[in-house]
Amino acid sequence: MKLEAYKIAEYNQKALEAHQRKLSYWTEEVANAEEIIKKLIDFQIAIPSWALGTGGTRFGRFPGGGEPRSLEEKIEDVGLLHALNQSSGAISLHIPWDIPKDGEAIKSLAASFGLRFDAMNSNTFQDQPDQEHSYKFGSLQHVDRAVRQQAIDHNIEVIKHGVALGSESLTVWLSDGSCFPGQLNFRKAFERTYESLQEIYTALPDNWKVFVEYKAFEPNFYSMTVGDWGASLLYANKLGPKAYTLVDLGHHLPNANIEQIVALLLMEGKLGGFHFNDSKYGDDDLTVGSIRPYQLFLIFNELIEGMDAKGMDHATDLGWMIDASHNVKDPLEDLLQSVEAIQLAYAQALLVDRVALEEAREANDVVRAQEILQEAYRTDVRALVAEARRRAGGALQPLTLFRQLNIRQQLIGERGLKTIATGL
Amino acid sequence: MKLEAYKIAEYNQKALEAHQRKLSYWTEEVANAEEIIKKLIDFQIAIPSWALGTGGTRFGRFPGGGEPRSLEEKIEDVGLLHALNQSSGAISLHIPWDIPKDGEAIKSLAASFGLRFDAMNSNTFQDQPDQEHSYKFGSLQHVDRAVRQQAIDHNIEVIKHGVALGSESLTVWLSDGSCFPGQLNFRKAFERTYESLQEIYTALPDNWKVFVEYKAFEPNFYSMTVGDWGASLLYANKLGPKAYTLVDLGHHLPNANIEQIVALLLMEGKLGGFHFNDSKYGDDDLTVGSIRPYQLFLIFNELIEGMDAKGMDHATDLGWMIDASHNVKDPLEDLLQSVEAIQLAYAQALLVDRVALEEAREANDVVRAQEILQEAYRTDVRALVAEARRRAGGALQPLTLFRQLNIRQQLIGERGLKTIATGL
Amino acid sequence: MKLEAYKIAEYNQKALEAHQRKLSYWTEEVANAEEIIKKLIDFQIAIPSWALGTGGTRFGRFPGGGEPRSLEEKIEDVGLLHALNQSSGAISLHIPWDIPKDGEAIKSLAASFGLRFDAMNSNTFQDQPDQEHSYKFGSLQHVDRAVRQQAIDHNIEVIKHGVALGSESLTVWLSDGSCFPGQLNFRKAFERTYESLQEIYTALPDNWKVFVEYKAFEPNFYSMTVGDWGASLLYANKLGPKAYTLVDLGHHLPNANIEQIVALLLMEGKLGGFHFNDSKYGDDDLTVGSIRPYQLFLIFNELIEGMDAKGMDHATDLGWMIDASHNVKDPLEDLLQSVEAIQLAYAQALLVDRVALEEAREANDVVRAQEILQEAYRTDVRALVAEARRRAGGALQPLTLFRQLNIRQQLIGERGLKTIATGL
Amino acid sequence: MKLEAYKIAEYNQKALEAHQRKLSYWTEEVANAEEIIKKLIDFQIAIPSWALGTGGTRFGRFPGGGEPRSLEEKIEDVGLLHALNQSSGAISLHIPWDIPKDGEAIKSLAASFGLRFDAMNSNTFQDQPDQEHSYKFGSLQHVDRAVRQQAIDHNIEVIKHGVALGSESLTVWLSDGSCFPGQLNFRKAFERTYESLQEIYTALPDNWKVFVEYKAFEPNFYSMTVGDWGASLLYANKLGPKAYTLVDLGHHLPNANIEQIVALLLMEGKLGGFHFNDSKYGDDDLTVGSIRPYQLFLIFNELIEGMDAKGMDHATDLGWMIDASHNVKDPLEDLLQSVEAIQLAYAQALLVDRVALEEAREANDVVRAQEILQEAYRTDVRALVAEARRRAGGALQPLTLFRQLNIRQQLIGERGLKTIATGL
Repeated sequence: MKLEAYKIAEYNQKALEAHQRKLSYWTEEVANAEEIIKKLIDFQIAIPSWALGTGGTRFGRFPGGGEPRSLEEKIEDVGLLHALNQSSGAISLHIPWDIPKDGEAIKSLAASFGLRFDAMNSNTFQDQPDQEHSYKFGSLQHVDRAVRQQAIDHNIEVIKHGVALGSESLTVWLSDGSCFPGQLNFRKAFERTYESLQEIYTALPDNWKVFVEYKAFEPNFYSMTVGDWGASLLYANKLGPKAYTLVDLGHHLPNANIEQIVALLLMEGKLGGFHFNDSKYGDDDLTVGSIRPYQLFLIFNELIEGMDAKGMDHATDLGWMIDASHNVKDPLEDLLQSVEAIQLAYAQALLVDRVALEEAREANDVVRAQEILQEAYRTDVRALVAEARRRAGGALQPLTLFRQLNIRQQLIGERGLKTIATGL
Repeated sequence: MKLEAYKIAEYNQKALEAHQRKLSYWTEEVANAEEIIKKLIDFQIAIPSWALGTGGTRFGRFPGGGEPRSLEEKIEDVGLLHALNQSSGAISLHIPWDIPKDGEAIKSLAASFGLRFDAMNSNTFQDQPDQEHSYKFGSLQHVDRAVRQQAIDHNIEVIKHGVALGSESLTVWLSDGSCFPGQLNFRKAFERTYESLQEIYTALPDNWKVFVEYKAFEPNFYSMTVGDWGASLLYANKLGPKAYTLVDLGHHLPNANIEQIVALLLMEGKLGGFHFNDSKYGDDDLTVGSIRPYQLFLIFNELIEGMDAKGMDHATDLGWMIDASHNVKDPLEDLLQSVEAIQLAYAQALLVDRVALEEAREANDVVRAQEILQEAYRTDVRALVAEARRRAGGALQPLTLFRQLNIRQQLIGERGLKTIATGL
Repeated sequence: MKLEAYKIAEYNQKALEAHQRKLSYWTEEVANAEEIIKKLIDFQIAIPSWALGTGGTRFGRFPGGGEPRSLEEKIEDVGLLHALNQSSGAISLHIPWDIPKDGEAIKSLAASFGLRFDAMNSNTFQDQPDQEHSYKFGSLQHVDRAVRQQAIDHNIEVIKHGVALGSESLTVWLSDGSCFPGQLNFRKAFERTYESLQEIYTALPDNWKVFVEYKAFEPNFYSMTVGDWGASLLYANKLGPKAYTLVDLGHHLPNANIEQIVALLLMEGKLGGFHFNDSKYGDDDLTVGSIRPYQLFLIFNELIEGMDAKGMDHATDLGWMIDASHNVKDPLEDLLQSVEAIQLAYAQALLVDRVALEEAREANDVVRAQEILQEAYRTDVRALVAEARRRAGGALQPLTLFRQLNIRQQLIGERGLKTIATGL
Repeated sequence: MKLEAYKIAEYNQKALEAHQRKLSYWTEEVANAEEIIKKLIDFQIAIPSWALGTGGTRFGRFPGGGEPRSLEEKIEDVGLLHALNQSSGAISLHIPWDIPKDGEAIKSLAASFGLRFDAMNSNTFQDQPDQEHSYKFGSLQHVDRAVRQQAIDHNIEVIKHGVALGSESLTVWLSDGSCFPGQLNFRKAFERTYESLQEIYTALPDNWKVFVEYKAFEPNFYSMTVGDWGASLLYANKLGPKAYTLVDLGHHLPNANIEQIVALLLMEGKLGGFHFNDSKYGDDDLTVGSIRPYQLFLIFNELIEGMDAKGMDHATDLGWMIDASHNVKDPLEDLLQSVEAIQLAYAQALLVDRVALEEAREANDVVRAQEILQEAYRTDVRALVAEARRRAGGALQPLTLFRQLNIRQQLIGERGLKTIATGL
């Protein structure tokens, strides 16, 4: 299904008066309101194809209905989100599940929804039915050259699919690691992984980036071969200028200061992309902003500071993507909540008085520095975010409209109740 | 397949001389060696039916071959383990996967391997194909009375199956909880869960126990309705004298002092059972003793101290069970390693000079108290454990014999390479 | 020094117009604004006497200037805070440092600032110069009856001082525990501690409460004898109806769900008091709301739900206290920030639409339940909190006025630059 | 006091027969026993001067008696340890507390005990009485150039003292960081710290190394400017070939895989030194091997693998040092326990069959790889360690002899009961 623009317009019309009242208050309160609105309009967050279906845990999975059964329906779903919020203008594919049969047709389908193709994702953490070698003991780290070659070839194939679709980056998340002390020679595992990555790197087009994602644990429970930002940065530096680190919020040890990691990676010119989600215990893949919204704000505070210091463009110079799993929510509703939370954090971080903040820091005025951040964070920027959506053609309240229009019920009508989204 | 006794005898015969040399040294070194050997012979650890197949994570599963395809084959597998180590003389079943078609036949099959039926495990963390209501939002905590009733009925059915097999306890592990702030009224969830447990409790035969297992997180990622020992003890105390807490080593927050929890639960007379495994990050379900063997020893130190203080029988007054998952190992080999690690820890804890330890404590001699524990822990008790196995009819080195006899290859021959063990 | 009311009035006058503009917007936006303002006026947070000086770590301490040198000056400091925010109308004393020489004089001094005496705090985690026995190996848990008696006597003495001042509660935080495996018999340590607490309990006046505070670790680094809410609740239940658990936000293992603990303790009628602070790693004692403001809101959400369900009075039926340490901030500024953060969280939690929330929960509408909490949390309640202060006679912006009036400089002038607050 | 050799000889004589019985068993069991004994004799662990007195926490300190009152007495204490175990042949000084008045005299005093001077430690985490600028807001990271210069100058002074004593390395542990979000510009703090380190680096003699120690948290509770191995390695790589990372076991986030960090740093040629201790929660500074002895073994397993792969000398090519604090133990007894635990772990790691281990890894035989490590770890190497001590002139059981000789009582007699060791 495709959401007709008039439905959004009708909905906005009814909510307009209340919105204007709030907006006029906040545009007076916030000096740079107009600038924030414009930046919000430009800021797009990619939706990964696997987030459109119900997730699950090793203990079970409780699918909802109306999930997309094909790449075309996944694009349709992201199209729906983008129509509603005008901030989800990209899709991130997962190979092998999202191999397009007809690349040009897929490209024009996406274009019809105003979507582009963000980072391509390879998968070597699972065996496919027709696969020659197993990834049980790793892929790019594997002791057997043949297994590594299979994983390298797969990544190169993913790049080719991406080139056909106009993507310009590859995200390599490796589950490689070990479950038990003794299982792995850490050094050799690093070296083999690095050699494998080199071959993939060589296959990258000139205008492409490769993101080396790190993760502290799971599915390997003793060591991960790309386990933290330090390891990822080592790989990225050895590989060369097209290699970057990617930060996923759920991939850290307890209590990690993620915002500092972000600042250091930006300082080194090696932050490439971001996976948004939220978590309490591990890689819980919860809705962005649902557990630690202040941390999200602090991360955006560093992103803006660090990108501005390098003259980077907020909207285009980093890969922004959601990476969440929805065990108990409607995936599309969850994604609407996640995008909204990102926009709120970004808007609040744009509110920070950076001149005053640096002055407070120079004076070691810790109390004032904290106040400056909290003043921004405590500001209710919901009206600014809604206005950005409205101007771009989206709905003032995407979630409310999603429910009013019974979109999920329509999807179930079209696709059935027992569908299961392909891919992971 | 069934392991013929003569094969074990043949194997032991070859290894006997080397074993005797070690044993004679250690029986001289260790004053209570004979007592330890006898206690080891009595000490049996139940094998859960789901540990006989390859586990997996939400990211994938890499099955091995020759996994048991039926309850009968699961019993056969535990029979193999028990023949090898003479310490796995019980099996713990998981319903609905292990429902016996003919209870008497299953009982006598188990008896033919020298096995009894330990705690029965219900399952309400997953939906079954024919199930009326979904457990997506919990089972015993569910807001809908009908769902709770379904879960209660299932538990009562599990008890009935257990009665038929001669089991005398029910383990209730609930995945109930919430993934997001706001989702659950914690108090009402507790109260509903308690009411549901009351109905199950009422259905317990007089000689039965119910174990209320707790877990800090996963598969719910914000709250668990039986989340820690404090909550579990609350339920157990409210339910009555047949209700107990069950400790699973992987179900705690980072850095928890599990041995202290064990001591307090024993003090309160409310420790009912134990799930052995090991972990580094969360409920990693790794081989017992593979990550923190000293913690395992310290836990046994508390178990012995606390059980002895109450005059409890080590072998029979608590439910001992392994609960692990094997993503990269042969399940049977993993279980042999796990049982061995438990026996070593138990034997070392039996070595602790408790009189001297209490004297050191009374004198606040922290250095001496530590030395006493370390003296026990640093002792190489492998020969004592091997001797206990030998006397009971098991193999001196079960894992070595398992490999020498090509048991896995035989099982693959019988059952096929692509079998997947039923159940979870 | 004492802050004259006219200075506050003058300051408020200048800021009034901007405040009124905000307030009039928010009283229209928020249906129950008036009710929230009234509840905020009633809500008072006690200031502990040790929070008035610069804290420190084992690595050093960097004192500021003008710190209070006596009990009288501590009361003066809290008086200043209360004059500014009208929400710090109580002080919590620490014995032996705050023993009043003349109880009546101290009482009337406090009354002159509008202050009452909240929970009394005993101290057995440190040796005093004239002390007969050392607490090196614990106090109420100590193996030596004489040491326990000394600690019991000290607590009874603290009660007497409290009675003289009109306090009605005793907070017992024990650093008792162990640093090494083997050091302590956990069970006997529990039993000795319980017996000691019984003697203290017996000495409590009828209208008094005793709060048994728990802490996961530090200063003991292997076990704490009152280590978590489960242990604290065991003690409180055994002791009787005057004994309660006290929750300090920094006293948990990583990732603990504190709001659930709060809900369960309220359910059991055993939550007695609260120590506010914030932390990232352990008992960091940072400014309230500076690290995890959403967690603070979620806790207040449970407090309100649970207290309302029992018909408790928010302002009086629990002990509210800050417990922080200020290593790099002016203590009074830090406390102003902390009180403000508490008020904001309380106000936001009062905004939660509880009827709608329960409806969403009954319908398993997780998305809606989250939205309801976030709608409250994302609301900018600063104008309501400022209005509550203004009506009660406090300053619209206490921190700004504190700086405008150069209060710290005045205190330094009066007390000197090198003063060090007594006590811990 | 100085321990006469004949007392050790007398003691050993009495214990010799029992020792020989054990030794002869183990030299038969362990193929490379002789090689292990020789390596143990060469392996020396430096004692830091601050570990000779009772430590403490922010909650208090409980001094023992007979603590060293001067640098001379500290050297005497390490001399005692070294006489007993012949494995503590170096001392690591802390400036400003250990500034020698007469360098040559101190050198020859140390030489008389067979001690050399290991890494020098600067201190900028605390203000000294006569200091011009405060380190309240950091030292090498400070926003004020004058403060940085003071800290740089201090480090250069430390190098000079070290040169005079024959030391060849400088350990820089910085407490620099921040306590609150907003306080610090992470990037600028890194850059300032790096510039400061460059000046120190420039002052290093050619044969010196500088160790950039990292720590996750404490005493700063929001961020640390050298917070993890990734950050430390960045500094070390930027600084040049004389700069290395130093690993302290207690300086990590919960659940960190330290052994993998060790392997990667060795791979990069940037591991410089090691601080041994143990911990359960944070930087608890407990006796080495008292909490996680298997982790210690796994770390030594990586150290040996990685050093051998680079042809490094175990005894001399890394800086080995204990860094512990003793709140409830006699410092000298604690240090004897710590050195013993290190020796045991080292000996067990030397037992690992590396050829078989690599074969198992190449075959993805996880079970076998684990067995190989456990076979080594479960071996009782106490007799080998005792033999190494005996051959070198030390006591078979240093702790037992320490107590038999009433050394602490003698030290109290000489130095008094109320002494407090200088320094931190």
